Amino acid sequence: MTATGRFITLEGGEGGGKSTQLRRLARHLRGQGIDVVETREPGGAAGAEAIRPLLTQGDVARWDVLSETLLLAAARRNHVEQTIRPALDAGLWVISDRFIDSTRAYQGGARGLDPAVIATLEAWVLDGLMPDLTVILDLPPETGLARAGRRIETAAPAAPGTGEDRFERMGIDFHQALRQAFLAIAAAEPARCAVVDATADIDAVEAAIRDIVTGRLAPGRDVPA
Amino acid sequence: MTATGRFITLEGGEGGGKSTQLRRLARHLRGQGIDVVETREPGGAAGAEAIRPLLTQGDVARWDVLSETLLLAAARRNHVEQTIRPALDAGLWVISDRFIDSTRAYQGGARGLDPAVIATLEAWVLDGLMPDLTVILDLPPETGLARAGRRIETAAPAAPGTGEDRFERMGIDFHQALRQAFLAIAAAEPARCAVVDATADIDAVEAAIRDIVTGRLAPGRDVPA
Repeated sequence: MTATGRFITLEGGEGGGKSTQLRRLARHLRGQGIDVVETREPGGAAGAEAIRPLLTQGDVARWDVLSETLLLAAARRNHVEQTIRPALDAGLWVISDRFIDSTRAYQGGARGLDPAVIATLEAWVLDGLMPDLTVILDLPPETGLARAGRRIETAAPAAPGTGEDRFERMGIDFHQALRQAFLAIAAAEPARCAVVDATADIDAVEAAIRDIVTGRLAPGRDVPA
Repeated sequence: MTATGRFITLEGGEGGGKSTQLRRLARHLRGQGIDVVETREPGGAAGAEAIRPLLTQGDVARWDVLSETLLLAAARRNHVEQTIRPALDAGLWVISDRFIDSTRAYQGGARGLDPAVIATLEAWVLDGLMPDLTVILDLPPETGLARAGRRIETAAPAAPGTGEDRFERMGIDFHQALRQAFLAIAAAEPARCAVVDATADIDAVEAAIRDIVTGRLAPGRDVPA
């Protein structure tokens, strides 16, 4: 019997440092002898990456919330089938920058799509797969948007000149609702989710995430099959 | 009280002459003083046209059937909201080259996706809209694929050099199942659907479609509000 891998997702609003923390967590786990796949949404597989620009670029109003959610679901299905499930089946660990909770929070909580529609799509697309651990990087949207704006202006490595700012441009009320939606998910599913204060400095956030992963998933010990 | 328009869809497998017949029907209706919008799927609105190449080009296996259906649903929602519903509300007639029955036949009948998934997506995306008339252009797939191949080779106006042949490359069993699925839809919904023999010559097919439209929708007479 082969051990299956573990699936960790990093979630939260803009400018919380998800991609930086993902790289640091992956490096830490590799240091413990674990094979790690780093991935992201929307994207993470060839088809899903082709869908990504339709979602992250262009006019805020180019999609109504249902079209947007259907595009995300199409991309997620491709990501799950082509990247995540094969890696987990091979015993690797997978860390994704965003996953189902971003859809629940952005399209559900902040844009108001019926949660029943989101839940139905989730069941079809995931077909039984769920993250083993979801870390939500929480910070006030004013802080996060300022960081995201600075990242673009300074052309730091995160997303220089990609124009991937469609969601960042959605207004402060949107981002307040988004934060509350992520916190509500964490409150409703405490066994899967953990909230980390992302206003702390980058090393402190890294340490907090590492403690959560160690406490909940025990990397380095034998993983039950 | 304003009269609303009528919504006609042309359906069927490859090479049945849908786009040619659409142009001819539109010309005929305009000759009767009706304002007509000619449109198509996947596409027919800016967002949906951006999705189209993901579906019509590239490897046959690039999407599993669920991803493919979700992409189609995202495109259809955009098409309905941006193009079809506004035109009908303004009293125009809309003729679309493909619509819901292509999803039922291609992704349901021929690719095997659960009809309940397709029906759920249809209800979300259409939100009460349905074609008033659907004309299914029926012909043996061998004939249709030979025509479609000839169209590409001769670079006739239909789709010169677009590489939009992903579905045409799906094998004869796929296209046989597709034909049966379209005929089953027509049998199940005779009030909405009519089947036309598309092996007849182009003028005879045009006349058959015109007779059906005249008999069922009475263009030129007052349309009930």
